[in-house]
Amino acid sequence: MNTNKIHIVDTTLRDGSHAVSHSFTADQAVAVSEGLDKAGVEMIEISHGDGIAGSSLNYGFSKQPEMELIKAASGVIKNAKLTVLLLPGIGTIEDLRMAQENGAAAVRVATHVTEADIAIQHISWAKQAGLFTVGFLMMAHMATPEKIVEQAKIFADAGADYINLADSAGYMTPEDVRARIAALKNAVSLPIGFHSHNNLGLSVANSLAAVEEGATYIDATCRGLGAGAGNTQIEVLCAVMERLGYNTGVNSFALMDVAEDIVEPLMQRPQVIRTDSLLLGYAGVYSSFLLHTRRAAEKYGLTPREILVELGRRGMVGGQEDMIVDVAYELSRKGT
Amino acid sequence: MNTNKIHIVDTTLRDGSHAVSHSFTADQAVAVSEGLDKAGVEMIEISHGDGIAGSSLNYGFSKQPEMELIKAASGVIKNAKLTVLLLPGIGTIEDLRMAQENGAAAVRVATHVTEADIAIQHISWAKQAGLFTVGFLMMAHMATPEKIVEQAKIFADAGADYINLADSAGYMTPEDVRARIAALKNAVSLPIGFHSHNNLGLSVANSLAAVEEGATYIDATCRGLGAGAGNTQIEVLCAVMERLGYNTGVNSFALMDVAEDIVEPLMQRPQVIRTDSLLLGYAGVYSSFLLHTRRAAEKYGLTPREILVELGRRGMVGGQEDMIVDVAYELSRKGT
Repeated sequence: MNTNKIHIVDTTLRDGSHAVSHSFTADQAVAVSEGLDKAGVEMIEISHGDGIAGSSLNYGFSKQPEMELIKAASGVIKNAKLTVLLLPGIGTIEDLRMAQENGAAAVRVATHVTEADIAIQHISWAKQAGLFTVGFLMMAHMATPEKIVEQAKIFADAGADYINLADSAGYMTPEDVRARIAALKNAVSLPIGFHSHNNLGLSVANSLAAVEEGATYIDATCRGLGAGAGNTQIEVLCAVMERLGYNTGVNSFALMDVAEDIVEPLMQRPQVIRTDSLLLGYAGVYSSFLLHTRRAAEKYGLTPREILVELGRRGMVGGQEDMIVDVAYELSRKGT
Repeated sequence: MNTNKIHIVDTTLRDGSHAVSHSFTADQAVAVSEGLDKAGVEMIEISHGDGIAGSSLNYGFSKQPEMELIKAASGVIKNAKLTVLLLPGIGTIEDLRMAQENGAAAVRVATHVTEADIAIQHISWAKQAGLFTVGFLMMAHMATPEKIVEQAKIFADAGADYINLADSAGYMTPEDVRARIAALKNAVSLPIGFHSHNNLGLSVANSLAAVEEGATYIDATCRGLGAGAGNTQIEVLCAVMERLGYNTGVNSFALMDVAEDIVEPLMQRPQVIRTDSLLLGYAGVYSSFLLHTRRAAEKYGLTPREILVELGRRGMVGGQEDMIVDVAYELSRKGT
C-alpha cells in the first residue's frame, strides 16, 4: 500500500466547465472553492475547460471572464493552492501572469502526450515566477510507457514539481494505468499524478490503480462533472480511499455535501455514460471531438459511432477537429 | 486471461425494477427482452425487484403482475434463457411453478450469504422441474472467502448449475472480489458468476476482476438500472470486454441501442451515485434500507448518513428493516 500522503486535486471548476458549457459564475466559483477548501482538498483548479484563455468560438465562450472567477475564488480559499490549467497554443505566459496576479498559486501546463517540448518555456517561466508547477501529459493512452517516461523527463528538466498523466479519452483499463504509472515511478524522481475520465466506467478503479503503483496526486470532480462521461467522482473516490486507509487529509462527508448541495444544483445534465461518451472511451478519441462528430454525422447521414471508431482507428489527436468532416465525408462516400 | 465463454446475464427487468418503482409493463418487458435477446444476451432475468411474489406493501407493489410480464417476454425471446429470481421466504415453489408455466427457463435462488441451507428444497425442486438453476449468495461482502465456499457447496450439493456471488451493497473493492471468486474457483467445480452494484463507482472494475479470477457469468443492466447506485452498466461492460478480447458473444453496439433507445426513456431518474447510495456502499448495508432510513431520519431529526453508518457498524442484514427505527431512536437519544 502507498503510505504517502495522497494529494487530492479538484478540477470541478476547470474540467467540469465543459459539462456546463463554461457557464460558471463568480458566485458559483466562490461556493464550490470554499466548500472544497474547507473539506481539505489541496489543489483547486479553475480555468476555462480548455485552460486559461480557452474562451473562444472554437472552444466555447465563458459566461463570465475566468480571471474574475479566479479572483473571486482566491478571496475565499484559505489552505488549498488555487490552480490554473494552461495549454500552450491556447493560453500564453501573459495569460498565466494575469492568473497569478488574480490569485493563482499553481499551474498545470498540459500538452499532448508526445509534445512536452512545447511546454518547456511555460514551465520554466512558472517556476521562476514562484508558481507550483505541474507538467501534464494528455491522452496518455496514445503513448507507450517508454515514450511517456521520455516526455516526463522533459517536464522534469524544465523544473516541474510533479508530473501528471491524463487519460483524457477515458480509454484506459486499470492495467493500462499500472503500466504507465509504474514506468514513471521507476524512471522519474518527481511525484506522479493521475487524471481519469469515466467513459468506460473505470475512473475510480483506475485512480486506485494509480495510487497502488505510487501516484500521489489524484484528480477528481464533484459528481464527476467533466468532459465526455466526466471525471473521477471526488466524493466517491475519497470515501473509498478513506475506507481503504489512505491518508488524503480530506473529509469525504464534507465533499459529499459540496457535491450534493452546491454542484448538483448547477449541473445542466446528469453525468452518466451515454452512448456517445462510451464510444469516445471505446475508440480512444478526445472528448472535444464529440460535438464536431455529431454535426458531421448529421450532415453526412452517418451515426456518431461510425465516425468516432474511424477517428480512433486513425489515431486522431486534439487540434485535428477540422479533419472530422473529411473523415465523415470519406465514410459517407464508401457507404454509397 | 480467462478464455472461457463469458455468459452475460441481464437483470434490467429484475434488479432494475427497484429503480422504476416496479412499474414495468408487459410492453416494456417485451421491448427490452427482444432487444437483449437479439444482442446476444444469454440470460434475461425478469421478476419483481425482490424476486417473484415480491409485489407487496413491504417491498412495493408491481404495476402489472409479473407473471404477465414473464409470459409476454417469453413470447419474443428466441435464444436467451428467460430467468426469474426467487428469494425463499418471499417467493415459494408454487410461484416458481407458475413462472415456469409462463415461460421461465431458469431460476436463481437467492439467500443471504450465510443462509444457503434455506434454498436446498427450492434448488432441488427447480432442477427436477428441468429449470437451469442457480444458487445466488447476496451481501457477499459480509462473509469471508472460507464461509462463502462452505455456503456454495450447499448449493452445489443441492444441484445448482452455477454459483452466483452478489455484492448487493456495492461495498466491495476489486481485491475483495478477487479473494472471494478465487476461493470459489479453487473449491467448487461449478461455474461462478458475479453481480455487482455501483455504489462505490467500482462495478465495471469489480466485474472485470471477477472474470480475471475465473468467473464466467456476469450480471449487468442497461444504463446500470438497479437498486441503490445501480448495477454494472451492461453496454459499458460489454464494450470494455470486447476491447479486451473476451468472448461474450454479445453485440455491444446493439446493447448501446437497447440502453439508449428503449431503457433510458423509461427511467424515472438518472442512475448516478448520490450521497445516500454512496453511503450504502461505504457502510455496506442493503439498499432496501434506504427508504426506511430516510423515513427514520426525518422522524428523529437525524441525517440518513448517521443511521446508515451505524447500521453498517452493527452488521444489519436484509429483513431487519424494522430495526432501523429502533437504531434511529437510540441515535436520537444519544444526541440529546
